[in-house]
Amino acid sequence: MTRKLSALAFALGCTLSNSAFAAPKNIIYMIGDGMGPAFTTAYRYMQDDKTTKMVEPTVFDSILVGMAHTYPDDDTVVTDSAAGATALSTASKSYNGAIAVDTHKQSLKTMLEIAKERGMTTALVATSQINHATPASFAAHNESRRNYDEIADDYIDNKIAGKLPVDLMLGGGTKYFIRDDRNLVSEFKEAGYQYTDQFDNLDSLNRLPALGLFADVAFAHAIDSDEPKRLTKMANKTLELLDKQNEKGFFVMIEGSQIDWCGHANDIACAMKEMDDFAGAIKVAKAYIDANPDTLLVVTADHSTGGLTLGSNGVYQWKTEVVAKAKSSVKELTNTLFDMKADQMGKTWTQLTGLPFDKETKKALAGAQKDSKEALYKAANKLINDASFTGWTTKGHTAIDVPIFAYGKGRDSFIGSLNNTQIADKLISYIEK
Amino acid sequence: MTRKLSALAFALGCTLSNSAFAAPKNIIYMIGDGMGPAFTTAYRYMQDDKTTKMVEPTVFDSILVGMAHTYPDDDTVVTDSAAGATALSTASKSYNGAIAVDTHKQSLKTMLEIAKERGMTTALVATSQINHATPASFAAHNESRRNYDEIADDYIDNKIAGKLPVDLMLGGGTKYFIRDDRNLVSEFKEAGYQYTDQFDNLDSLNRLPALGLFADVAFAHAIDSDEPKRLTKMANKTLELLDKQNEKGFFVMIEGSQIDWCGHANDIACAMKEMDDFAGAIKVAKAYIDANPDTLLVVTADHSTGGLTLGSNGVYQWKTEVVAKAKSSVKELTNTLFDMKADQMGKTWTQLTGLPFDKETKKALAGAQKDSKEALYKAANKLINDASFTGWTTKGHTAIDVPIFAYGKGRDSFIGSLNNTQIADKLISYIEK
Repeated sequence: MTRKLSALAFALGCTLSNSAFAAPKNIIYMIGDGMGPAFTTAYRYMQDDKTTKMVEPTVFDSILVGMAHTYPDDDTVVTDSAAGATALSTASKSYNGAIAVDTHKQSLKTMLEIAKERGMTTALVATSQINHATPASFAAHNESRRNYDEIADDYIDNKIAGKLPVDLMLGGGTKYFIRDDRNLVSEFKEAGYQYTDQFDNLDSLNRLPALGLFADVAFAHAIDSDEPKRLTKMANKTLELLDKQNEKGFFVMIEGSQIDWCGHANDIACAMKEMDDFAGAIKVAKAYIDANPDTLLVVTADHSTGGLTLGSNGVYQWKTEVVAKAKSSVKELTNTLFDMKADQMGKTWTQLTGLPFDKETKKALAGAQKDSKEALYKAANKLINDASFTGWTTKGHTAIDVPIFAYGKGRDSFIGSLNNTQIADKLISYIEK
Repeated sequence: MTRKLSALAFALGCTLSNSAFAAPKNIIYMIGDGMGPAFTTAYRYMQDDKTTKMVEPTVFDSILVGMAHTYPDDDTVVTDSAAGATALSTASKSYNGAIAVDTHKQSLKTMLEIAKERGMTTALVATSQINHATPASFAAHNESRRNYDEIADDYIDNKIAGKLPVDLMLGGGTKYFIRDDRNLVSEFKEAGYQYTDQFDNLDSLNRLPALGLFADVAFAHAIDSDEPKRLTKMANKTLELLDKQNEKGFFVMIEGSQIDWCGHANDIACAMKEMDDFAGAIKVAKAYIDANPDTLLVVTADHSTGGLTLGSNGVYQWKTEVVAKAKSSVKELTNTLFDMKADQMGKTWTQLTGLPFDKETKKALAGAQKDSKEALYKAANKLINDASFTGWTTKGHTAIDVPIFAYGKGRDSFIGSLNNTQIADKLISYIEK
């Protein structure tokens, strides 16, 4: 079915039975960790071409179909990433901290495991360590997200029909894979996996199975990195390796892990750079589907982070130009400023934030520096958030519904307001068909 | 449906439903002022039946189809209700404060005016004064939302094809309609309108045209009212009066005006009661469509208010039970407490908030009371928001995308991520058909 026909059918208001609800061969599942609706909205205004009157739609706008409910299996309403990912991978709600186990700590079968049982090729991609809560909840089982070593072990010990669960993993986490007590990288190599730990050598991976671990723990934040598009590049490599490998198709989960981390830091410029990398990866997935229409893309978030709002303190404005000028995460900015004499901060401050180093700024930063690095972080962050009218209410998560995006074969199943477990249910039903 | 389209659909092998994109006869347009996605999410958790494991979907969940971009026609990103309503009524962006005029202060034709020109019956319903920004932007034109008298005048002076623009108006605003310089109520009566200013007498209105003005300015907040379901009742009455009046159909705009006002007050319990009344009105509209399938319901918001977040201050929890116990708006609570001796506050505090009057509460309230009524308001509000982990970042609006809901004939046109002007464009195209 060509895109033109699909568009025509959509315009006619009719349902194309072989594309709208039918099971796709391949599934690309993308999770923007912490990416509540304020993040996708903010990204649109950041991307706006100021030379035109309208605010241009983003890649997210081109595929929005609904919103998802994220509550965990207790009375807190607010989920963490482990319970969120468990719901999104197994279609079952569990407790905060759970890695694909239920409230009785019994394993829940994940959609990646079901895909593997059915003979599909499987993959996990993240900018966090690859054994962090979200990817972990697709291929490991643990009572606590904090048991990083055990989770990494599961990636090789948790056999599915006698096979390793994941054919391709790209992310960070060498620290957890090469340990005093066990060298998982050696074990993966022995099991036939190609391996690299050099991001520059990503292209050296040319067959499956393969493992790429490009950081001790996680990648650097996109805003602080020489490779701000590392997720986009990994998504591209992943689809190149998965393409036409297997007539039974593939399942891949690709996570924009650090949108959440920048949200926890209440660092808006950091979050927007992560959104840009995630958007790039979505564009790669969309292009793959345009060439391979037998593929479904579903994108969502596990929860929203930080209580981000665009506009704050009573002012009817959100200043994208302030956010756009930031050249460093507030964490790195603080590290740099903390070791300087207060008098010398000005040039660096203006260089890294684009903001003037006026009397009040100097007073706030110098005063905080005397106190502690944490105080300096807070002061710097407040200056940037106040200047841009960016609001935050928490260093943790919130319960707001998150957007659902879908594209390709089977896309119509995701229209509307869904429980996060319903997203998983529908994907599992496609995998099982 | 033309024969060519049918043939094309047949050739595509798909079934044309006669409800997906075809023009409906009647249009019910509902605007939840200030109702960003955190409000509809919060309402679901408030409505949860705690005796069941799952969180039940709400009426909003049953009809969600997309999200809308709310930016006004300047570089602020954050809209006010006037520019928001103008976009939603005319399909044109304008400046904050504009009532159906463009940036050059020239009138923009509204969808209600187009409906009237086409011979449809028209109606406006609100819990604010009926000449407040949102309803005003459907039937009046003014360079400023603050010109309340001129806007009320427009409701009788702004003739559409020789006729008054609106056949039925229900809301507040006698202060603006019965003035020293002009008595608009008398003029409406002379023009043949039935009139009542008694909400108990709502049922005395039994034919069109009609005017009901039930408050000097606005209705009391639902949470402070003996009639917390006043919008639901007015919606019911409106559809009873509009039903089968006119073979050309009807257009009605029904606003949940005070969700926004409770948001400005950062008063979560107040907002949830307004949401409940708005949800009731939506249920009425849905039931009408079930009986009259030739009708389209579209529900959206003009913007979000307050920077509401569910979860705050680093805690992964949002306590619905705290919100549910509030029996008064914080404004009324403050009015009551301000005139009491600090020692006597305890009983009233606990009665109206359900919260304990412990040492710290007493200290916070008594200290603030000594300062000013405003300080007492802030202290009381902070205690409630902190106890429920409700976050707010502003007394004003924010730029986050708002949900779109649709039901009935033509519903599929509203699926996806739309500019608010696109919602208006599609509705106008239906009215013009």
